[in-house]
Amino acid sequence: MEYQVGLLDVDLCGPSIPKMLGLEGQDIHQGNLGWSPIYLDSNLGIMSIGFMLPNPDDAVIWQGPRKNALFKRFLKDVDWGEIDYIVIDTPPGTSDEHISAVQYVQTTGINGVIIVTTPQQVSLIDVRKERSFCKTVGLRVLGVVENMSGLRQSVSDFTEVFDSSKGGAEEICEEMGVPFLGKVPMDPKLCKSADEDRSCFLDQQSAAGAARALKRIIEKVVTEE
Amino acid sequence: MEYQVGLLDVDLCGPSIPKMLGLEGQDIHQGNLGWSPIYLDSNLGIMSIGFMLPNPDDAVIWQGPRKNALFKRFLKDVDWGEIDYIVIDTPPGTSDEHISAVQYVQTTGINGVIIVTTPQQVSLIDVRKERSFCKTVGLRVLGVVENMSGLRQSVSDFTEVFDSSKGGAEEICEEMGVPFLGKVPMDPKLCKSADEDRSCFLDQQSAAGAARALKRIIEKVVTEE
Repeated sequence: MEYQVGLLDVDLCGPSIPKMLGLEGQDIHQGNLGWSPIYLDSNLGIMSIGFMLPNPDDAVIWQGPRKNALFKRFLKDVDWGEIDYIVIDTPPGTSDEHISAVQYVQTTGINGVIIVTTPQQVSLIDVRKERSFCKTVGLRVLGVVENMSGLRQSVSDFTEVFDSSKGGAEEICEEMGVPFLGKVPMDPKLCKSADEDRSCFLDQQSAAGAARALKRIIEKVVTEE
Repeated sequence: MEYQVGLLDVDLCGPSIPKMLGLEGQDIHQGNLGWSPIYLDSNLGIMSIGFMLPNPDDAVIWQGPRKNALFKRFLKDVDWGEIDYIVIDTPPGTSDEHISAVQYVQTTGINGVIIVTTPQQVSLIDVRKERSFCKTVGLRVLGVVENMSGLRQSVSDFTEVFDSSKGGAEEICEEMGVPFLGKVPMDPKLCKSADEDRSCFLDQQSAAGAARALKRIIEKVVTEE
């Protein structure tokens, strides 16, 4: 099924979505109904501060309140059209962007949160904090994705990088009682396709491993919704 | 030479320093002259919100102004003693923590900033932004460290993970005219020693590769100062 999706990048200090989707240098236009998102495909509209900077090297040196004001405009002043889902990509943490997301979007209903982590203990501490944030503000955790689970160079060649002998994301999910969505290996070809603005799903060159892992995760999320 | 060093972790939403230094569960004490840092060694005092949370899983759900107020207290109300250097570890970005660091510390003189990145294009975009931030606020860039430069499993076994065919951090440094401090490989043994609170410098088990790379970088920074 084809969904109509909006993708909102609220990492205002380090927006990566334009680069990763090959949309660098695109400009936002003001239409009658507000700012128009940039469309990658007819069913995927994207909004990011990366489209609004005169120079891509410019730093956005803003404190919380100013970031929150732009976030609000991204929701109110953008002509998202009729969309089934809006995916909000936040920077790490439990601060302005996350509090704003809850405040501004909760009235329309938030399906839930996907937490992305790496396998080592130092990162899993933050998964517990994100989970505690979700509990406090009343958000459902749709699940946890373990990224950079190890290095996959071919189907048979997998190397562990971060130590998971004390249990990785899967174990912490069991303990917290939230769904584990899957592991995404580090994959040199996936990194290359992101840097070169190619979709890892369409790209024959991209490793089957990481693309397949991502596809399984997406299917899990969409099916369980 | 032995320096007296203070280490201030201002990643309030995701403090990693206590875990990485094996100081989890330590409590901050209030002395006559203010909060006492936790000492790892007689010449290394550490301050982190991680020492102040009743439960390590708790999320710190604070907006910018409240984060800035605690940052100020970490500088004013902590009895740092006579120190030669204070190292401030910030989260990524160019927002509250970074603006506060400049505002609160600049009068005492800031030697400069070390930018840590990974090799791929998507991260190097942010290096340019950090550099632009430093220019705007008048801070010197001491140099750039490239972390996760590839996977090193033994002296002879090195695998590139992120694509650096378009140039990694070294090339961007040349272009920007800032010092390149060195590359730190991904090293399963380094990750393990960080997770298990062991110093990679003292630890015989830890890979010589990453520890040696880190040592060279430290020497470069201290010598050039």
